[in-house]
Amino acid sequence: MAHKGEQTRERIIHQSAALFNVHGYIGTAMSDIIEVTGIQKGGIYRHFSSKEEIALAALDYALEIRIAEVRYAVETHGSALDQLNAVSHTFLGLLKNNVIPGGCPILNTAIEADDTFQPLKKKAQEAMDSLRSLIHQTVTYGKDQRELQPYVNGDVVATILISTCEGALMMSKLYDDVIYLHRAIDHLEAYFDTLKS
Amino acid sequence: MAHKGEQTRERIIHQSAALFNVHGYIGTAMSDIIEVTGIQKGGIYRHFSSKEEIALAALDYALEIRIAEVRYAVETHGSALDQLNAVSHTFLGLLKNNVIPGGCPILNTAIEADDTFQPLKKKAQEAMDSLRSLIHQTVTYGKDQRELQPYVNGDVVATILISTCEGALMMSKLYDDVIYLHRAIDHLEAYFDTLKS
Repeated sequence: MAHKGEQTRERIIHQSAALFNVHGYIGTAMSDIIEVTGIQKGGIYRHFSSKEEIALAALDYALEIRIAEVRYAVETHGSALDQLNAVSHTFLGLLKNNVIPGGCPILNTAIEADDTFQPLKKKAQEAMDSLRSLIHQTVTYGKDQRELQPYVNGDVVATILISTCEGALMMSKLYDDVIYLHRAIDHLEAYFDTLKS
Repeated sequence: MAHKGEQTRERIIHQSAALFNVHGYIGTAMSDIIEVTGIQKGGIYRHFSSKEEIALAALDYALEIRIAEVRYAVETHGSALDQLNAVSHTFLGLLKNNVIPGGCPILNTAIEADDTFQPLKKKAQEAMDSLRSLIHQTVTYGKDQRELQPYVNGDVVATILISTCEGALMMSKLYDDVIYLHRAIDHLEAYFDTLKS
């Protein structure tokens, strides 16, 4: 079992992850973290040297959860087509704020991160790499199983799946209406069907 | 010709639009606006009562330019399919920072805006409404011309075009690589072809 210091550190990370995902890196102040955790400034500085350090740890945590969701969707489905459709459906969970509120941490970080704080952008790139890699592996598996046509390009399928779902998630959040994400998922299902051998 | 006060007001709006689109609403301070415009605080407050008011005027300006680009793409192409593909291609301009740097102002605002500043979210919704409406009209035109099949749903086409391009723009900006947007445009071209009668 983790000792008390580790538990406090974990609690700061978990509770800050929601703040950063909803309000962004610049939009979250140390005072917000103090308020939500109920831990005094001195207590927080015993575990982290700066807001930047908390933000990076919180983003790591949010991204790990996101990648684990996608990995779980792939691992719990048999055929490559079912796996691809299951990945699309994970985006519905982001809209329902199942785990961490505020939508997709990769999308949020990609939009906010610019040259002012490169480490955040780098983490978003790495998480996007993982997401693309999981989809690419699914396509390779589908080709090995002769379920998908041999010419199907895993990088292209990953790009189309991710861009369509991330863009539709943005539309669904903007209008507070799940229909955009459902249309995207249906469109992708028809697209995946064209890849069958 | 506009008198000097109007010119100053316009200059504040134009130069702030780039700041807000790159750094976001929260990430842009009044001191940044003073620095980029070279106008003293007192001079800025002669035209605007707050940063909020500048942000809303700057967003109006950025969104008007964006909608005008899409309208121009539609109006300068003959067939509905050419018009739809031309709309996809306008997203390449957002990546190249042709007019206002920082990508798509609708996407950026949709991701940043939350309950803390509803007026920004409302403007992003209105711009998204305009974008969807232009695409919907193109589909209706294509059906009237018997170029597109009669069952094609304009709302669905608008959702797929916008979500795929906005998501791919995010990926291309994240990796500083245009390939994601090109893959999205190619994918959409193949999708639009399936709508032909």
